[in-house]
Amino acid sequence: MYIKYLDNCQWENIALLPYKDGDTHYKSITKQILFEGLEDIPCQLRYFEIAPEGYSTLEHHQHAHLVIILSGEGEVLLGDRVFPVRGKDIITIPAHTWHQFRATKGHPLGFLCLVNVERDKPVLPAEDDLALLRRDPVIAAFIRS
Amino acid sequence: MYIKYLDNCQWENIALLPYKDGDTHYKSITKQILFEGLEDIPCQLRYFEIAPEGYSTLEHHQHAHLVIILSGEGEVLLGDRVFPVRGKDIITIPAHTWHQFRATKGHPLGFLCLVNVERDKPVLPAEDDLALLRRDPVIAAFIRS
Repeated sequence: MYIKYLDNCQWENIALLPYKDGDTHYKSITKQILFEGLEDIPCQLRYFEIAPEGYSTLEHHQHAHLVIILSGEGEVLLGDRVFPVRGKDIITIPAHTWHQFRATKGHPLGFLCLVNVERDKPVLPAEDDLALLRRDPVIAAFIRS
Repeated sequence: MYIKYLDNCQWENIALLPYKDGDTHYKSITKQILFEGLEDIPCQLRYFEIAPEGYSTLEHHQHAHLVIILSGEGEVLLGDRVFPVRGKDIITIPAHTWHQFRATKGHPLGFLCLVNVERDKPVLPAEDDLALLRRDPVIAAFIRS
């Protein structure tokens, strides 16, 4: 199957979706589902795009992520570090690693994210999780929740 | 884990490899292994780059491919059709579908290719396979072997 890219970060016959249902701990982010798994590849591929100043949910979960930055630039919290990211950087996120993507650079941040088709729901931080994360001043300044 | 893209289609601490061992039915193509699987993502992610006029092996196999064009442009044989491809196009290749990538447009063609970490070896065309493929003049003109 051939899924044609149409410019402007959209693909032919792929719907532009809300980022999540039932979670409001994010800002200015859209989702497109590009691949739902095929035969021996039990993975879903999504494209997320965060508008400038937007961010994904600060969360962790059992399932792993493989992320490929596709356009723009921004930053990501990955465990206990914040990394700058831009096109073609690769980020792998193991189980139960706190992560959050932010479009901090005045540009949108677009990235592909691969997950298993069967996966658990993300866990959001409780107040004591936030207190622990905020012990590092770099993380305290970075996270949005 | 954060794998930084270094420009020039290379990533930090990622080796530039030969495309394949023990197969000479390709031309001007390199491989980089970006991801070897993690927890519930049992997949390997490779980046292949084909120099202008180069091509990947014409082959089929049991394992599926998820391909994301990352740079440049070219064409792909996918089953019984040839598609033009360029950056951010997505191609899914089911089991036992003949496929071949070619950098036909005077530019390199760079693409990510996701496969299961456990997979069968590709099958190359026998003379009767080639005869069948060549019954379509578009495919006859396209394939290299």
